[in-house]
Amino acid sequence: MAVTIKDIARICGVGVSTVSRAINNDPTINVKTRDRVLKVVKEYNYIPNNSARNLKMIESNTVALLVMGIENIFFTSMFGSFQEQLEKNGYDFLLHAVSENQDAVDVAVELTMEKRLKGIIFLGGQMDHCKEKLEKLNVPYVLCTVAREGEKFHADLPTVSIDDKVESQRAVEYLISKGHKRIAVITGNKNDFAVGGRRLSGYRHALEDANIPLDESLIIHQKDEIPGYSPANGYAVTKELLASHTEFTALYCTSDLVAFGAYKAIYKAGFKIPEDISVMGFDGISLGEYMEPGLSTMVQPKQDLITASVKKLVKRISGEDVTQDIYEAKLLERASVRPLR
Amino acid sequence: MAVTIKDIARICGVGVSTVSRAINNDPTINVKTRDRVLKVVKEYNYIPNNSARNLKMIESNTVALLVMGIENIFFTSMFGSFQEQLEKNGYDFLLHAVSENQDAVDVAVELTMEKRLKGIIFLGGQMDHCKEKLEKLNVPYVLCTVAREGEKFHADLPTVSIDDKVESQRAVEYLISKGHKRIAVITGNKNDFAVGGRRLSGYRHALEDANIPLDESLIIHQKDEIPGYSPANGYAVTKELLASHTEFTALYCTSDLVAFGAYKAIYKAGFKIPEDISVMGFDGISLGEYMEPGLSTMVQPKQDLITASVKKLVKRISGEDVTQDIYEAKLLERASVRPLR
Repeated sequence: MAVTIKDIARICGVGVSTVSRAINNDPTINVKTRDRVLKVVKEYNYIPNNSARNLKMIESNTVALLVMGIENIFFTSMFGSFQEQLEKNGYDFLLHAVSENQDAVDVAVELTMEKRLKGIIFLGGQMDHCKEKLEKLNVPYVLCTVAREGEKFHADLPTVSIDDKVESQRAVEYLISKGHKRIAVITGNKNDFAVGGRRLSGYRHALEDANIPLDESLIIHQKDEIPGYSPANGYAVTKELLASHTEFTALYCTSDLVAFGAYKAIYKAGFKIPEDISVMGFDGISLGEYMEPGLSTMVQPKQDLITASVKKLVKRISGEDVTQDIYEAKLLERASVRPLR
Repeated sequence: MAVTIKDIARICGVGVSTVSRAINNDPTINVKTRDRVLKVVKEYNYIPNNSARNLKMIESNTVALLVMGIENIFFTSMFGSFQEQLEKNGYDFLLHAVSENQDAVDVAVELTMEKRLKGIIFLGGQMDHCKEKLEKLNVPYVLCTVAREGEKFHADLPTVSIDDKVESQRAVEYLISKGHKRIAVITGNKNDFAVGGRRLSGYRHALEDANIPLDESLIIHQKDEIPGYSPANGYAVTKELLASHTEFTALYCTSDLVAFGAYKAIYKAGFKIPEDISVMGFDGISLGEYMEPGLSTMVQPKQDLITASVKKLVKRISGEDVTQDIYEAKLLERASVRPLR
């Protein structure tokens, strides 16, 4: 039930007329009292009766892009295009970062109330909520490149992404086709059952299909104590891998940024890419072109993902029921992988 | 003068009661008529009288970060911290990108009306407006690392930044101290009199102070047709510079991202860094550590800039008059510059 002016008065320990004066910014009210009342008004999302409907009308045109991983280049490189396409469809664009220790759906619920959002696009990260929790969001939403735990896609949710398992398998099959059998992989941290888990699963399947025995010592998890999918993490784990003298001819990094750090560790240890170690990335960030040597990688179809997400959200806003779109990644051969024989 | 309900009715060619029914979402109104009226209501920013003051109160807690250069890593890496610090101060965070062909102040004026912002932080880019235009913004604002045209800082504006000229001079003095005299510089495009212009001015002064004659063939402007301060631009101009056989022992890139592309062009031409060519960057993006060799650069004090911007804005919101803060960059020696003798 909606909060009334009486509730606000009771919570603040003041009279109804004081609340009214605070809301109307009456000059006769004590400033401290006013601020205290307004804080409670905001906290309880109290909307004065006579303006409630107008507010709804005036504020209803905003779509929020909720980003999990605000400093990941792969996601930030999508912001401009998201804004452009949403504005082209007549929506205001609001970008909001979800920090690592926040629950994306909780943030979304709060933001929806505060901003009376028209819709939400979740970008990146992983989301392990049951469908029921997501349904508590009473605005249309779309999940864009949001990984979901487990082997199966939840085809009943409005999702736009690649199939991380299938595309990861293709990346490893490419390395195998070049004659590599001892392929080390840097995946997510040990609790990453979403993107990391699915990309690792693709790695396992590629080896299995090629009858290459799995060697657990070649499976490297990113460190918990370093930001995930960062050059720093790639550097740290590659350095350890090289120090362990585990033999491998190719290193498959499940993210280009991780590969960026891996390059550094490989060079520091005195090895050459690709002469001594072949490196394969994933995502297709634009910097990959300028790495030395250019990074071979699986390119996510960024523009398709953005366009499809916006289109799907527009449909959902107009009441259509939409489910998932799966896009294909593209194998991009540059110079970081060499044929083994 | 504010738009009235009569104006809206006249513009839409309907009666006042129809406008009222549209605003109140009366079920008896024709849907198309309603949408048309609401579009005009929004366009003219018409606020129904009885809710105007309440609206103002309820929506007044948002601070917008207006970013010029949404895909520049240096800026995107600041988003998370800006959001965190603004929220810690009790503000909602709204991130809005200004595209290259938009006027930042025009965007700000519109956004302020739509969102009833509490304040604005402009981040990045350049701003050549006179103070008068900025004063049309009737909300408090702060300029964070926004370059302003010309030689002099506008000390009367609320600015948080480094002094691009002074710090650029330090970068070049460092190269000179290592014995370099033939120092090529990649600056902004030909019309960049702000960041590019000021950093170029620092370059000229450093040479002058060291009695090194200026050679215009060593001054390289980024290309207009490629996004500014990008690896792609650095790559393209360095490739041309190397093809021209202009002699130089050090290349000073006025942005790390430009240096990133310059590395690639240098390697492709068969040269080594720093054995054949020393490279110096500017900005201090975190990727510089993972470049091979690590990029020596001038590090902008990102955290200080963010903290100071938020603090200054909070002061401005509470009515204090604040002007500029200048912070110092830090010379970071990695491995991309070698002593010449």
